[in-house]
Amino acid sequence: MKRLLLAIVTVLFLGNITAFAKNKIDHLEPAFWWVGMKSPKLQLLVHGENISDLKPELNYAGVSIDKVSRVSNPNYLFVDLLIEKDTKAGEFDILFKKGKKTAVSYKYQLLEREEGSAERIGFTPKDVMYLITPDRFVNGNAENDNVAGLKEQVDRSDSNGRHGGDIQGMINSLDYIADMGFTAIWVNPLLENDQEKYSYHGYSTTDYYKIDGRYGSNEEYQKLSRLAKEKGVGLIMDVILNHCGSEHWWMKDVPSVDWINNKGEFMQCTHKRSTIQDSYASKEDLKQFADGWFVKTMPDLNQRNEFMATYLIQNAIWWIEYAGLSGIRVDTYPYSDAEFLAEWTGRVMEEYPNFNIVGEEWSTNPAIVSYWQKGKVNHDGYRSNLPSLMDFPLQNAMVEALTKEETWGTGWIKLYEMLANDFLYFDPGNLVIFPDNHDMARIFDQVERDYDLYKMAIVYTLTMRGIPQIYYGTEILAKSDAGGDHGKLRTDFPGGWEGDQINAFTGEGLSDQEKDAQAFMKRILNWRKTSDVIHNGKLMHYAPELGIYSYFRYSDAGKVMVILNKNKEAAQIKTARYHEMLNGNETGKDIISGKTYSLNGSFEVPARSALILEIN
Amino acid sequence: MKRLLLAIVTVLFLGNITAFAKNKIDHLEPAFWWVGMKSPKLQLLVHGENISDLKPELNYAGVSIDKVSRVSNPNYLFVDLLIEKDTKAGEFDILFKKGKKTAVSYKYQLLEREEGSAERIGFTPKDVMYLITPDRFVNGNAENDNVAGLKEQVDRSDSNGRHGGDIQGMINSLDYIADMGFTAIWVNPLLENDQEKYSYHGYSTTDYYKIDGRYGSNEEYQKLSRLAKEKGVGLIMDVILNHCGSEHWWMKDVPSVDWINNKGEFMQCTHKRSTIQDSYASKEDLKQFADGWFVKTMPDLNQRNEFMATYLIQNAIWWIEYAGLSGIRVDTYPYSDAEFLAEWTGRVMEEYPNFNIVGEEWSTNPAIVSYWQKGKVNHDGYRSNLPSLMDFPLQNAMVEALTKEETWGTGWIKLYEMLANDFLYFDPGNLVIFPDNHDMARIFDQVERDYDLYKMAIVYTLTMRGIPQIYYGTEILAKSDAGGDHGKLRTDFPGGWEGDQINAFTGEGLSDQEKDAQAFMKRILNWRKTSDVIHNGKLMHYAPELGIYSYFRYSDAGKVMVILNKNKEAAQIKTARYHEMLNGNETGKDIISGKTYSLNGSFEVPARSALILEIN
Repeated sequence: MKRLLLAIVTVLFLGNITAFAKNKIDHLEPAFWWVGMKSPKLQLLVHGENISDLKPELNYAGVSIDKVSRVSNPNYLFVDLLIEKDTKAGEFDILFKKGKKTAVSYKYQLLEREEGSAERIGFTPKDVMYLITPDRFVNGNAENDNVAGLKEQVDRSDSNGRHGGDIQGMINSLDYIADMGFTAIWVNPLLENDQEKYSYHGYSTTDYYKIDGRYGSNEEYQKLSRLAKEKGVGLIMDVILNHCGSEHWWMKDVPSVDWINNKGEFMQCTHKRSTIQDSYASKEDLKQFADGWFVKTMPDLNQRNEFMATYLIQNAIWWIEYAGLSGIRVDTYPYSDAEFLAEWTGRVMEEYPNFNIVGEEWSTNPAIVSYWQKGKVNHDGYRSNLPSLMDFPLQNAMVEALTKEETWGTGWIKLYEMLANDFLYFDPGNLVIFPDNHDMARIFDQVERDYDLYKMAIVYTLTMRGIPQIYYGTEILAKSDAGGDHGKLRTDFPGGWEGDQINAFTGEGLSDQEKDAQAFMKRILNWRKTSDVIHNGKLMHYAPELGIYSYFRYSDAGKVMVILNKNKEAAQIKTARYHEMLNGNETGKDIISGKTYSLNGSFEVPARSALILEIN
Repeated sequence: MKRLLLAIVTVLFLGNITAFAKNKIDHLEPAFWWVGMKSPKLQLLVHGENISDLKPELNYAGVSIDKVSRVSNPNYLFVDLLIEKDTKAGEFDILFKKGKKTAVSYKYQLLEREEGSAERIGFTPKDVMYLITPDRFVNGNAENDNVAGLKEQVDRSDSNGRHGGDIQGMINSLDYIADMGFTAIWVNPLLENDQEKYSYHGYSTTDYYKIDGRYGSNEEYQKLSRLAKEKGVGLIMDVILNHCGSEHWWMKDVPSVDWINNKGEFMQCTHKRSTIQDSYASKEDLKQFADGWFVKTMPDLNQRNEFMATYLIQNAIWWIEYAGLSGIRVDTYPYSDAEFLAEWTGRVMEEYPNFNIVGEEWSTNPAIVSYWQKGKVNHDGYRSNLPSLMDFPLQNAMVEALTKEETWGTGWIKLYEMLANDFLYFDPGNLVIFPDNHDMARIFDQVERDYDLYKMAIVYTLTMRGIPQIYYGTEILAKSDAGGDHGKLRTDFPGGWEGDQINAFTGEGLSDQEKDAQAFMKRILNWRKTSDVIHNGKLMHYAPELGIYSYFRYSDAGKVMVILNKNKEAAQIKTARYHEMLNGNETGKDIISGKTYSLNGSFEVPARSALILEIN
């Protein structure tokens, strides 16, 4: 109820600017804030013609202006507020004065925090994330397919165009998501992307405080989060710190020449991420990597500019607080300034000590990926504050293991040896593991449309250490005749559009195999939800032998044995080898088939299949 | 002169055993020792029928029997001597007594050490090693092709048989080796391998204190070392700690059931080396790796047996001292017990603090290889004492870089990114780097017989950080139509056998390309010998661009720029990018062609070639 009231207040007063004379405020961000935050500091970015001629004043118990900074562009003011510990929620005017006259004022709100907000628990290994590309999932509201004032129009025939999926679509699908057994959704960026082209993917932010109108509104996003939470599903925001969209409003009037890297001019990023860790790297290469732009339409933010850094830190905290997030995924993590990243994650985690943040370091080298995890003692003294990373090395090794022949150096050995590298991580159990994502071919294609291998990939992902993530549609064997076209692998979820012939929600039109895949994953997901040993258990794996790879998850709470058999024949498993885990008298119940195996002596694993045995 | 005297003494008295009654000593090892060693301890292994019934006594100033150990087999005694600091060189009788009667005695010698022995400097980045498979290099003495009492006979038509190469052959070739510019020879094992088959490779030791008669004698080995040193060439011994040959004398009468792993019974080693570092490994897998045998004819030594451990430690020190070694290469390093390895390397390095030892960990994963280097802080607390490792990861990446197309993730980027992993090593500059070795196809074959790529591989190996190693014959483009047959890639060096039609020493019969390759390497090697910046300089490399990879070696002493151009066209190099290293006004003299390049603005690198520019 309290939240509803706050929402109404928000709607009524947001951006309530009173202009006198000819001064006006075009942007004041963040538009509102909260009392009771751990950090008493808040920096307002104020943008308006010649705003720097004015002097801000305010009068509110517990709130003071600590500092006012002016930059080279006279159209900006950065106003540092101090909000004392016991300040009451409420509103006050910030008066921007010229001499004794108020030239323009802004009604600022300090809201009450949600109860337990600071202590919220982020995603953990108890969770399985469902990754959604919102434009391609479900079109819940056809009214917002095109929105006045936003450039790109809907065109479902264009694989790289907008297809109309939206927040309402996700709201409508929450039952499906929860029933499947997912406990979190990571949604690709929803912030405004008012770009001419390719705006559907969301990675070219044009407003850091506004949900794109074609997806819905800030309030709908808040609603999605609330309704999802009611069904036990957390919301994870996709955050981009490295770059904005070339159509971002500030690109027409940057605060200073160092707001955007390379003085605001395009320079291609080398994408050579290992340069950061490399003791032999030239400064020139480091500069071209760090200051280069991802692509021309993505100006590279200079986070070494302290105002930019503060802006990005506050923006993340604002969304966590506003939308009740249970996690953040950070795009292109190492492309941002490394010191800034430590500060950004540090500040966010300071506000929310039990939160979780996962960074994307797309490297298949665990020595590079592990560098970024909090707790890692690095060669160069770098101290990260990032709790989690996407486990690209394991994803890559899993596909290699499944698709390559069993030889001395190929097949399961690749996965076994990759997992052995976990000693490089401070906390491998907190990595996010996945069979595919929005930037690669679907797992079904990666395993050459071999359904048995697909199922092994799913079993592995859902029973291995870490936090699994499944890309929407992968549960119904989504395919990706992509050939490098990302737009094509982000296929529309069948049933998400009115008139769809195939409907993955009802099963209508799905092939038997697709239905089977969906039921297969649903069964494992719902079992996983209740399996403490998968959430918290230790791991022991056995060196692959004769095409079979096996491992245990174990704790005082129980034991689960997973056996993956790539052979075209059934295989006899002799239990003696597993004496550390099995006493020889147990039985194992396969949670997929429901079949019970006696683990006395030996037992048979069917050809090309996986068993998940709960040991009793 | 002193050494000559000692050698004579050695010949006269070695193994001088006097037997009384029916007791006799079959083995007493080490047969002699030195005074003035850092460690005062010496443990003698004594083997003879019922020797454990006897009690050893001796009477020599400064030498005492500290402890006598008996094991389950009565045919062994382990006698611990203490040799005080200022003990004089000389000889004394060890009397083995039954009651008051001497049953058998042994005349033991304590020799004077070579001057500077303890302070000897092992191989360093100043060196380039020439790796020789002695059976396949030069047959300098046809008399020892077959030796009475040694099973396998010479058969040059058998790729896996003995071809007759020997120590005299290496002695005869020292001028060639030194003229080429090599400063060390690493010779594959020369110790007795009295096996039925495959004895030529030397990795099945049947006597740890005896050079195989088909190669020569201990004295000839000593001579090789002395003569090589006179030409500025150090001798590196190939040491096998993990296993012996199945025909080793002790296999017929082991001291105890735990002398050989798995109670002396064959069990296949899994070869899953990453199990050691793996936090998730089962004890069962660890056991199968650590206690498994490399192959059936190579019984796996149990170095957890303290007598075995001491035996192997003393054996290494004995050979360093006896033969004046300047380094050791350890075969199959991680296959031995890890704690023992730390002790073995620790003890050897304690005796010779400036020595160098390189271990073979055949993994292309630098996280695994770096685990074994001294100074590395490991996740499991393991502390290694091994100074150097073979850089298999870099070798593999170099071949990938040369042979694969330039794309986002293939080509030079592989080498650039692999080198970036150097942060994992405690001391990457002390790694041994190589284009090929005795266990893999020749580099010319690895780069698909592309001579331009071959030359780039040689340039890279000889200018990169680390200590280069070149396999004999690689300098004349040796080929390896091996198809997995190791015997075939270890080809006879042409000119090493009387009547050879081709002679690599004189150039007779070599193709123009082979001669060119030899001259190419000779030129670089001889330049490298004098290049302080290659020996001691730092490294800076630049991210590959458009098929070109470039790096600098630099120090106060100078700068060297290496440019590798894989393109089929000449390339313009703009010097501005290298502003950290070049001031734009220098010239660079290519040490290969002798041509001088002006580095003002830009300069041209010919198609598919390498430049090594000394900057002035």
